[in-house]
Amino acid sequence: MSINIPQSSLPRVVIAGGGFGGLKLAQELDSRHFQVILIDHHNYHQFPPLIYQVASSGLEPSSIAFPFRSALRKKTGFVFRLAEVQGVAPERNLLLTSVGEVKYDYLILACGGTTNFFGNDQIARHSLPMKTLYESMNLRNVLLQNIEKALVSDDEERRNALLTVAIVGGGPSGVEIAGALAEMKRYVLPKDYPYLDSSLFRIHLLDASPRLLQAMSERSSETAARGLREMGVEIHTGTMVSDYDGKTLRLSDGSEMKTRTVIWVSGIVANAVEGIQAEALGRGRRILVDEHNEVKGLTNVFAIGDQCLMTADANYPNGHPQLAQVAIQQARLLARNLRARQEGKPLSPFHYKDLGSMATIGRNRAVAEIRGAKWGGFTAWMLWLVVHLRSILSVRNKVIVLLNWIWNYVTYDRSLRLILKRNIPVEPYHQREQRERREHEE
Amino acid sequence: MSINIPQSSLPRVVIAGGGFGGLKLAQELDSRHFQVILIDHHNYHQFPPLIYQVASSGLEPSSIAFPFRSALRKKTGFVFRLAEVQGVAPERNLLLTSVGEVKYDYLILACGGTTNFFGNDQIARHSLPMKTLYESMNLRNVLLQNIEKALVSDDEERRNALLTVAIVGGGPSGVEIAGALAEMKRYVLPKDYPYLDSSLFRIHLLDASPRLLQAMSERSSETAARGLREMGVEIHTGTMVSDYDGKTLRLSDGSEMKTRTVIWVSGIVANAVEGIQAEALGRGRRILVDEHNEVKGLTNVFAIGDQCLMTADANYPNGHPQLAQVAIQQARLLARNLRARQEGKPLSPFHYKDLGSMATIGRNRAVAEIRGAKWGGFTAWMLWLVVHLRSILSVRNKVIVLLNWIWNYVTYDRSLRLILKRNIPVEPYHQREQRERREHEE
Repeated sequence: MSINIPQSSLPRVVIAGGGFGGLKLAQELDSRHFQVILIDHHNYHQFPPLIYQVASSGLEPSSIAFPFRSALRKKTGFVFRLAEVQGVAPERNLLLTSVGEVKYDYLILACGGTTNFFGNDQIARHSLPMKTLYESMNLRNVLLQNIEKALVSDDEERRNALLTVAIVGGGPSGVEIAGALAEMKRYVLPKDYPYLDSSLFRIHLLDASPRLLQAMSERSSETAARGLREMGVEIHTGTMVSDYDGKTLRLSDGSEMKTRTVIWVSGIVANAVEGIQAEALGRGRRILVDEHNEVKGLTNVFAIGDQCLMTADANYPNGHPQLAQVAIQQARLLARNLRARQEGKPLSPFHYKDLGSMATIGRNRAVAEIRGAKWGGFTAWMLWLVVHLRSILSVRNKVIVLLNWIWNYVTYDRSLRLILKRNIPVEPYHQREQRERREHEE
Repeated sequence: MSINIPQSSLPRVVIAGGGFGGLKLAQELDSRHFQVILIDHHNYHQFPPLIYQVASSGLEPSSIAFPFRSALRKKTGFVFRLAEVQGVAPERNLLLTSVGEVKYDYLILACGGTTNFFGNDQIARHSLPMKTLYESMNLRNVLLQNIEKALVSDDEERRNALLTVAIVGGGPSGVEIAGALAEMKRYVLPKDYPYLDSSLFRIHLLDASPRLLQAMSERSSETAARGLREMGVEIHTGTMVSDYDGKTLRLSDGSEMKTRTVIWVSGIVANAVEGIQAEALGRGRRILVDEHNEVKGLTNVFAIGDQCLMTADANYPNGHPQLAQVAIQQARLLARNLRARQEGKPLSPFHYKDLGSMATIGRNRAVAEIRGAKWGGFTAWMLWLVVHLRSILSVRNKVIVLLNWIWNYVTYDRSLRLILKRNIPVEPYHQREQRERREHEE
């Protein structure tokens, strides 16, 4: 059984995962020197920094996704396979996938991470992650449906719970989705739901740490918190979540919150790959690598991006932050290092160059920090727009995103409020009556 | 139990279904004279004529969908409810929905139709309809996935079946999706799948009648058939389908075709509404109405569009074709007639004004017939583009669709080839091996 990979006399590089790191590596490798095979369980590369805009009806999924086959069309001999990565068998130089085994000369694990529910299955089942395009579309559906359900509810407690959104995690994703929902509350709800008192729609942002945007300076944290509060977001720092059963969010101080929409953006854990020994795994299941991104204990197997943990970079003794820039810079260096290994030359060690970080809060508002300099307000917001627009793959997507942004900015609207799914999970009213009676009696 | 409809002293018009007819009626009714309630199980109006372009990766779902709440935002007192229409209780003036009962003074049934599988459950289970946005996205996923699966198959018969598409139904939808897939085969496959022999990708178009596009002239039929044949579509007229089990399409002449993708566009049946007596139903489950679209045997209950059957229009003694234009014209007249009924004036009878029909075949190719005049080729194609672009709701969607069309035309590309779903249904390879062995032994 093979997965039909065309013959080639070149050494074969198999890249598992087409996120920022995997895609960049595929682009950088010279097809005169290597046969490049990319394996991913999606047929497109997605752009996570704008996923919150898909969730909040500002952008279409296709605007921030790009099929691998198009992206790498000009690469001679490039092979893509749609498959789930299942494990490695390093002793036989094989990557195991859902469609068969692939022999490699060099293997690069770039499978990224997935939402971290810290082992709480109940939270995983009932809350809404926002890490993939599909999840963001699902979140959009739930947000819009819950408003529709609230409109036809006679039970005040149920109605309020349907109109309450709790966002768990005060990093950039949490801050950005909170801001986007606050704008929806202010500009869209009054027009779309003239009979609804939009002050009933409440947005809570929770974080265990004492301030939002921990990775940024205190000044930026404060700017963000002030901006969100002005927009009506209720911020609860120093607040841990202990459980969520789909109706009641329980906090570690014993208090609780009734909500039907919990957005879970409180961290990631690296995707698991079978065949990697437990001793090669570090914190957050990240694969331990040396300064060349080579997996500890293995030869010609590398890991890059969110999936790896490198402690050899002097400025980052605890490992790098799990950011796009780290993955991209590691991929770029690894392309050169693979060539060096092939030629028997010494490999260069990785040093992360921090290009800064930023988060948008809303219309004309963002925070940005670049090499010690800090911006807030309109300048940071323009900077945010330019940086993100530049990073989006393909001219077509850039144009569509820019047009959507201009449209949304000018009209104060979010045009994509479609609940797009097979079954509209509206309960038949007699069932609902029974259930509500039951709930009331409890 | 109520569904919380705001109080009003005006007579209440309840519209069940927001397709071409229902939406037009909601727009035309004057909110100074009526309270207008629209019920639909989607929160958006969709534009069926371009659904085949979503299926073939040329357009995004959101480009041809428009939320009702935006579309009718400027209408004072307008109420939308997201709900499944379940039945009517005319003796109590009630519409029954999944979220509760709605009292009406006037009820308009505009629920349209659904794909007609002619009672064959096996075909319904295994073939792919293309009537809603969700179905078109699903079809897109299956088309793209089957190509990916073919690439990793060692079994030649299975590979060929994965690369064979059969379209059942030679009306405009069948012709248009056949043309779009033929263009994908010619322009996209060779670039995206350099290792795949694209002649293996075969497109069959089947119809029970002796020619395609029955509703148009023989000349247009021939133009369409010739065009499609030149583009590589294999046409089988006079061919009935008797069964399909997901692998083998059986034809009524006893022959069969191995295919994993059967697109079923061979007719519609009106959606059922409980509480309408059997004697008020005609052919294709359509509700019999008089010349004012009032349901036979009921008062102040009307049916319009695909869901109704009117035999009183002298030029259409067997009823009107199930086309957007009929629904729109009926809605327009009904808005005036409801006002007349309210004022105690006589109602005007409906006469359908045929504005012509058209179908696009591919790049620069279409057929169009307008009041006896017939066009083929580029002129008809431009006409088709203009007519459809004009009919799309909202400036934003017009702009996005036009940009996509220009982009696709200039680049010969279809950019939206995303397989967007939660689980990629690629079988684990050991399961597949077992299954293929089993299949082979059978």
